[in-house]
Amino acid sequence: MSMDADALQRFMAASPFINWSGMRITDADHEGKTLTMTMALKAEFERAANTGQWHGGPIAALIDTAGCFGLIMVIEQGSPTINFRTDYLKPAVNTDLTAVATIRRVGKTVGVVDVDVYNDDKQLVAVGRGTFGSQGG
Amino acid sequence: MSMDADALQRFMAASPFINWSGMRITDADHEGKTLTMTMALKAEFERAANTGQWHGGPIAALIDTAGCFGLIMVIEQGSPTINFRTDYLKPAVNTDLTAVATIRRVGKTVGVVDVDVYNDDKQLVAVGRGTFGSQGG
Amino acid sequence: MSMDADALQRFMAASPFINWSGMRITDADHEGKTLTMTMALKAEFERAANTGQWHGGPIAALIDTAGCFGLIMVIEQGSPTINFRTDYLKPAVNTDLTAVATIRRVGKTVGVVDVDVYNDDKQLVAVGRGTFGSQGG
Amino acid sequence: MSMDADALQRFMAASPFINWSGMRITDADHEGKTLTMTMALKAEFERAANTGQWHGGPIAALIDTAGCFGLIMVIEQGSPTINFRTDYLKPAVNTDLTAVATIRRVGKTVGVVDVDVYNDDKQLVAVGRGTFGSQGG
Repeated sequence: MSMDADALQRFMAASPFINWSGMRITDADHEGKTLTMTMALKAEFERAANTGQWHGGPIAALIDTAGCFGLIMVIEQGSPTINFRTDYLKPAVNTDLTAVATIRRVGKTVGVVDVDVYNDDKQLVAVGRGTFGSQGG
Repeated sequence: MSMDADALQRFMAASPFINWSGMRITDADHEGKTLTMTMALKAEFERAANTGQWHGGPIAALIDTAGCFGLIMVIEQGSPTINFRTDYLKPAVNTDLTAVATIRRVGKTVGVVDVDVYNDDKQLVAVGRGTFGSQGG
Repeated sequence: MSMDADALQRFMAASPFINWSGMRITDADHEGKTLTMTMALKAEFERAANTGQWHGGPIAALIDTAGCFGLIMVIEQGSPTINFRTDYLKPAVNTDLTAVATIRRVGKTVGVVDVDVYNDDKQLVAVGRGTFGSQGG
Repeated sequence: MSMDADALQRFMAASPFINWSGMRITDADHEGKTLTMTMALKAEFERAANTGQWHGGPIAALIDTAGCFGLIMVIEQGSPTINFRTDYLKPAVNTDLTAVATIRRVGKTVGVVDVDVYNDDKQLVAVGRGTFGSQGG
């Protein structure tokens, strides 16, 4: 099984939550061990009505998903999220989000992945770091 | 301003994301410094179709929101999430979720809040810990 | 092998770092799944000279060790620390420290442990939460 | 006050813990917003006797200190650690450690710093991410 961007996208589309969220893989760089994903703002994601500001919840969900699928790209099998940290750096307003997941390590039982989240102006709005299972499942 | 459960619920309802998610405060214990919130499973939250299993993303969003409003209950003003950690302990399947936020400390610039998330059988499915701003905003 | 407080203490004493630090188990509650450990202030632990204030580094080391041995108590074999979070809540000054590790979950590959750190007045000075390997090693 | 490597080293030397640990700044890159620090293995840091393997505690202390002084370099005043995460990626054996702290953001109340820790072969052995106060103190 070759986990290119299309295969990963199909895997993601099988998840009602991910599908509803509209997360979409734009690059799967096996060599560089980075996976890039975008997510468009929609009304249900707003923190306060008519502000265009993202609530943190969907941003955390994007970090979780990008980290998880970043590891899936490398280990080529399913992976459960074990834990992750989310840091909000700057309000994300009237913008889509781009998440870049970078694999920091793949060990026997777990992998560690960093996720940087950018707005349309390529400014960092949040960072994530998580531990994901590397034994499949 | 007295931040009882109703006032907090109204505050939450002003957020399109929280409103859409259906999070609902069931107890605001000022003395014990705990806030309890529930969230019902809906189709958009499923990890895989027709499994009834929650995707981790909405669980992280619940932890973020419960922690944040737990601190809001105590400081009686808005509070931004600075960072938080999510640990998934057990799949949450065909169940609503109950989050109990416990304030561990309120300092001059930040507060620290723990969030335990339970399924309908009162089993722990996830835990969260976060830092939230205590200067308002 | 029964991992009572004495057996755990002997295990700890085999580590030059733990031994030098002076960490000492005072209670191993298998039923309640909590392990209690103390650590006395020494000159090398001071943040600033002659202030009696602990540097955060030794507090983080105490959280790491208490969490790790809390899980060892339960799984009765060695356990590597995978990751942990440290939150400092209050300066610890002219005091010994007591760490209470509580096992939140033991899974097939990892366990999650919370650690609360108190000063001599039983005030919380720091909290930790970590993931430790549950397959031995 | 110009916080070059020498000034930061003097600031660090005023701390008995840091001084005893032997942490030493080797590069302070204001423009790139990175601070580099080394720490030599000593007997008291061993995880198990005569193995040459670092205990995780001193590695966490290095992450805490490198992150904190990374922010101090930028804000040019003292900074308390609020919280940090430590992930151990690989045993560090018979090696000195080099920590590279990178400032990810400096906000009004807090800053976020990443710390990568390498062995003598430039392999990553641990990563840290922390939140530090940016209002001095």
